[in-house]
Amino acid sequence: MMATMMELINELWLLPRHLISPGYDAALKRLAAELPMTIHEVPSGTKVWTWTVPESWVCHEAYLETLSGKRLLDVADHPLHVVSYSLPFDGEVSRNELLSHLHVHPGLPEAIPYVFKYYQRDWGLCASQLLRGSLKEDRYRVVIRTEFTKATLKIGEVLVPGKLKECFVVAAHLDHPAMVNDDLTGVVVGLEVARRLLAGPKSFYSYRFLFFPETLGSIAYLSQHEDLIPQMQGGLFLEMLGKDAPHALQTSFQKNSPSDRALITALRGLELDAYVGGFRTVIDNDERQFNSPGVRVPMLSLSRVVNPHLPESRFQPYPEYHSSLDTPQIISQARLENSVETVLGLLKAFDQNLYIVNHFKGEVFASGYGLWVDYKTDSSGHKRRFEIMDRCDGLHRPADIAEELDISFQDVWGVIAKLLENDLVSLSLTPQPTDPHLA
Amino acid sequence: MMATMMELINELWLLPRHLISPGYDAALKRLAAELPMTIHEVPSGTKVWTWTVPESWVCHEAYLETLSGKRLLDVADHPLHVVSYSLPFDGEVSRNELLSHLHVHPGLPEAIPYVFKYYQRDWGLCASQLLRGSLKEDRYRVVIRTEFTKATLKIGEVLVPGKLKECFVVAAHLDHPAMVNDDLTGVVVGLEVARRLLAGPKSFYSYRFLFFPETLGSIAYLSQHEDLIPQMQGGLFLEMLGKDAPHALQTSFQKNSPSDRALITALRGLELDAYVGGFRTVIDNDERQFNSPGVRVPMLSLSRVVNPHLPESRFQPYPEYHSSLDTPQIISQARLENSVETVLGLLKAFDQNLYIVNHFKGEVFASGYGLWVDYKTDSSGHKRRFEIMDRCDGLHRPADIAEELDISFQDVWGVIAKLLENDLVSLSLTPQPTDPHLA
Amino acid sequence: MMATMMELINELWLLPRHLISPGYDAALKRLAAELPMTIHEVPSGTKVWTWTVPESWVCHEAYLETLSGKRLLDVADHPLHVVSYSLPFDGEVSRNELLSHLHVHPGLPEAIPYVFKYYQRDWGLCASQLLRGSLKEDRYRVVIRTEFTKATLKIGEVLVPGKLKECFVVAAHLDHPAMVNDDLTGVVVGLEVARRLLAGPKSFYSYRFLFFPETLGSIAYLSQHEDLIPQMQGGLFLEMLGKDAPHALQTSFQKNSPSDRALITALRGLELDAYVGGFRTVIDNDERQFNSPGVRVPMLSLSRVVNPHLPESRFQPYPEYHSSLDTPQIISQARLENSVETVLGLLKAFDQNLYIVNHFKGEVFASGYGLWVDYKTDSSGHKRRFEIMDRCDGLHRPADIAEELDISFQDVWGVIAKLLENDLVSLSLTPQPTDPHLA
Repeated sequence: MMATMMELINELWLLPRHLISPGYDAALKRLAAELPMTIHEVPSGTKVWTWTVPESWVCHEAYLETLSGKRLLDVADHPLHVVSYSLPFDGEVSRNELLSHLHVHPGLPEAIPYVFKYYQRDWGLCASQLLRGSLKEDRYRVVIRTEFTKATLKIGEVLVPGKLKECFVVAAHLDHPAMVNDDLTGVVVGLEVARRLLAGPKSFYSYRFLFFPETLGSIAYLSQHEDLIPQMQGGLFLEMLGKDAPHALQTSFQKNSPSDRALITALRGLELDAYVGGFRTVIDNDERQFNSPGVRVPMLSLSRVVNPHLPESRFQPYPEYHSSLDTPQIISQARLENSVETVLGLLKAFDQNLYIVNHFKGEVFASGYGLWVDYKTDSSGHKRRFEIMDRCDGLHRPADIAEELDISFQDVWGVIAKLLENDLVSLSLTPQPTDPHLA
Repeated sequence: MMATMMELINELWLLPRHLISPGYDAALKRLAAELPMTIHEVPSGTKVWTWTVPESWVCHEAYLETLSGKRLLDVADHPLHVVSYSLPFDGEVSRNELLSHLHVHPGLPEAIPYVFKYYQRDWGLCASQLLRGSLKEDRYRVVIRTEFTKATLKIGEVLVPGKLKECFVVAAHLDHPAMVNDDLTGVVVGLEVARRLLAGPKSFYSYRFLFFPETLGSIAYLSQHEDLIPQMQGGLFLEMLGKDAPHALQTSFQKNSPSDRALITALRGLELDAYVGGFRTVIDNDERQFNSPGVRVPMLSLSRVVNPHLPESRFQPYPEYHSSLDTPQIISQARLENSVETVLGLLKAFDQNLYIVNHFKGEVFASGYGLWVDYKTDSSGHKRRFEIMDRCDGLHRPADIAEELDISFQDVWGVIAKLLENDLVSLSLTPQPTDPHLA
Repeated sequence: MMATMMELINELWLLPRHLISPGYDAALKRLAAELPMTIHEVPSGTKVWTWTVPESWVCHEAYLETLSGKRLLDVADHPLHVVSYSLPFDGEVSRNELLSHLHVHPGLPEAIPYVFKYYQRDWGLCASQLLRGSLKEDRYRVVIRTEFTKATLKIGEVLVPGKLKECFVVAAHLDHPAMVNDDLTGVVVGLEVARRLLAGPKSFYSYRFLFFPETLGSIAYLSQHEDLIPQMQGGLFLEMLGKDAPHALQTSFQKNSPSDRALITALRGLELDAYVGGFRTVIDNDERQFNSPGVRVPMLSLSRVVNPHLPESRFQPYPEYHSSLDTPQIISQARLENSVETVLGLLKAFDQNLYIVNHFKGEVFASGYGLWVDYKTDSSGHKRRFEIMDRCDGLHRPADIAEELDISFQDVWGVIAKLLENDLVSLSLTPQPTDPHLA
């Protein structure tokens, strides 16, 4: 008996899922109850490429009071009231000193912002602009009881084994306390996709689903599994899938990889008004680590950011981003379900995107194989069908054909499927040119 | 004593040149009297790739009568009155049944259409819209005496041997009863070009001229001569060369092949207002089989279709297409002669399109070799001449240079010819880079 | 104690520096007093590729008189009064005959033109339009005492040895009597750059500075040093650097060579309004010989021609071109100094343009290495920095990155320098791909 995506979100969202923290660990444990999952652990202090795994951090208590003991703000009311990874503090401070440690959201007067200080070690609290504006006294009392502990960074992995060990990676980040769209939505959509793939027929490629804390999770996983990197043929980062906006697909660094071509041309067939943008132009996240030098996995990302075509989108993907307004109210189960279908469609195209090797020579006797489109009633359909068959030459994959003809992956696959049924073509992982001039 | 192109057309056009038929065979026999020709025969029932060679078909008698015996239509009056490959029929039919078997031309009220039913086995007659409109009686008598026989599909081949066995294919289709522009014009132009090449100096490449029934002829020839395919370096399909319109050159599937580049850039130097269009965009014919997967001979096509830039051109290349109005009246010997010159010019460029290997280093001492163009009187001619010589480096063919500089093949060849005379360059079938940095 | 660039120009410009001549030899000897220089000599009559080294030429005396002995024009007054390489002549001539041998400048009424006749053997004098217009008598006396002698064409070479024998060539032409901008400016700038490189730290590549007579000098040097050509990785021809105009950089024939990319992207960082134009579009000179077939050294040229974007620029690069008005008055030491800095900047980029091999995997922990740009205050700088690091993969050189990102070489190098300091990358002469999928 499985939880729905919204049920999982409602259960997990308010947990203090800081980068490495008991709240994060609890959330990952809950996911592992849904599907067979391997938990990888990397201890604090481990050197992971140019980074080091931080300590675990927990906030036992944090509040702001007047000197007369009136409580103005308490982390018990909302996990975002304390800066993530804040140093502990206990003392009386002047109004000016307090203000330099009290963060607000620049654009949302009533929201508490999400602020983190992993490397600029400092103490800090977060509040709404309204609260901050009301502070008129000269001195205040601040208590922040936080604790840094050696622990482990944890990564959850669900493997869907295919016929090949070569794999495609789907990832989402599970950290970020009390936020939903960023990125519990990516997590639950990824989990649901994994569940359906596990229940379906065996795929050609293997699929690895990863759930981790942002940036450090990717780096920790990759640096501990360097032997797997050459097997990774592509990937998709899932994030911010809950807002009411069309899907936005961000290409990988390589942008013409088979992974890119398959996903881009498949999205054409799945959603008319979807947006496709270049690497580092839509929204930045863990796909950066997978695409980086020395790794170079062509990982795309799928989101529903609101204005993907605007340069500022990368830092302001939706109004409630990185604030206490990023709650279950701004997302919907229907959109998450639709994203699950979209991701399944993209992965299906990746799995089908093999070289098409023609067993035929010359034009196929189309009417003998149910492949005839009458030019008198559908001249462009007639031309299109032959243009697809023209490219079944052991050198093209369906996505290459879709790209060349500016049509969808699914349009191409419709013809390939009929050719496969009639044993007129087969599929191959490697190019098999059939042009006799190349022999 | 040879027949002119128009004499041949007048002699052959009314023959019932159905796909495989005694009329076709008679026409091919007449061509073979003009030039040394090999006749290839492929028996009915032979599997040719995904197709099967049909039976021969002949119509002994076909007419439509009123029940009172008034003859309304008779194939003896025009070969198009019967559907090509019609089943036999003899009987009285209702007006409605008759109309469902009586085909007319959609756009030409007075013309008899050309209709063929090779795979949807049925009986049928063809008439003008005027005749069909005049049928008011309840019942009619139809007699169609046709006969299907095991015979052979016949292909005529004229070989012009060159220094190399590598060859270029020129083709046209000889079938289509009582039609002229489609494609007796291509046939007689091809035959005349072959005659002139045979009479001229030995070419570098060999040239194969093929005359066959549409589609099945190409497939039958290619499937029976697979060993020759790797030798075929390019090709040109000739069709519909009689109407008063500029030449239209349709590129091959590969579009940047040496064959394409040579013909495209040579056409620039031959005809100012010629049109060049992409594969499957001007007019569809047997070049499709040569360009197809597993064959991949870069065959272009040359025609005089009336509006090659319109998408519908492929299905309506000229008003009289596939009708009884496609007669000797719509063509002219002058245009056929001009097409012969054009084809000879295209083939000459193909033959000359070899890698130019420089024996010189540095800029050639131009005034010492008669290659100087004074920049004071012709600055762009001066620049152009040096731009051509800059590219004589063992890596460019004349057509590559013409393409890069957006000039004609002939403009480039003018300079190459002078360099050849002075032994400053030689020609090579393979690239011979002379850049010392590549050694 | 070295001469300044203007001092050298003032000292040398009026010398009769004809193609091969005592005046040219004297000028080269003076240069050799400034820096260690090898003088290569190639005797008259030597076959140099498709050319032959001419004889030396000197004009002992040349004048035009009225029959009454009034001297109208005397080469003693200005070296341009005689056609360079004029045949000798002594006699009385009609006014008409005189006019056919008396050359004027088409656009500058008061200037004496520079005219040379190396291959159309003839005698000739040069004068202003004003003088020519004043000739009203019927007959005149002409004396031209010139002498052709077997001698040697001389080329001066300054070698700046680097860590590699692979080299970059900087060249300028020293001939052209009594002219300054064309090309004494290129000569003195080249000499000053060589002087500074010799005084600086050892470069990676070697640099060869060549001073020679136009065209024949390049061909003579190259044909006598064919073994060096494969070592020449790029080059820069310097010319016409004195006029008040931005620098114009003309690409090599290859236009995407590392030499081109380094210089083009470096110029972006050196001069905002510099112009970049294609090979043979800005100004023609000895770079043609280096770029030619069989040589193919990617040599660019740097000038300050006035309207480099106009097609006629190549034949009329500045108003005083090839006339007696090309004097020290039209140039300035400040512009020459600026050109020296520009050339040094271009050469530095060429020297730094090696493959960047990443020692890191994943994104670099930027804040740990002083590489962090805060996206809140500089979002495009943040993106740009990561875009540069994304391309440090053993397959890109700084100029390739600058080209892809449309930024300057120097912008890229700023980041590379920090990565080098932190041992996060190293440089390599050859590509060293680090993508584990390519292994």
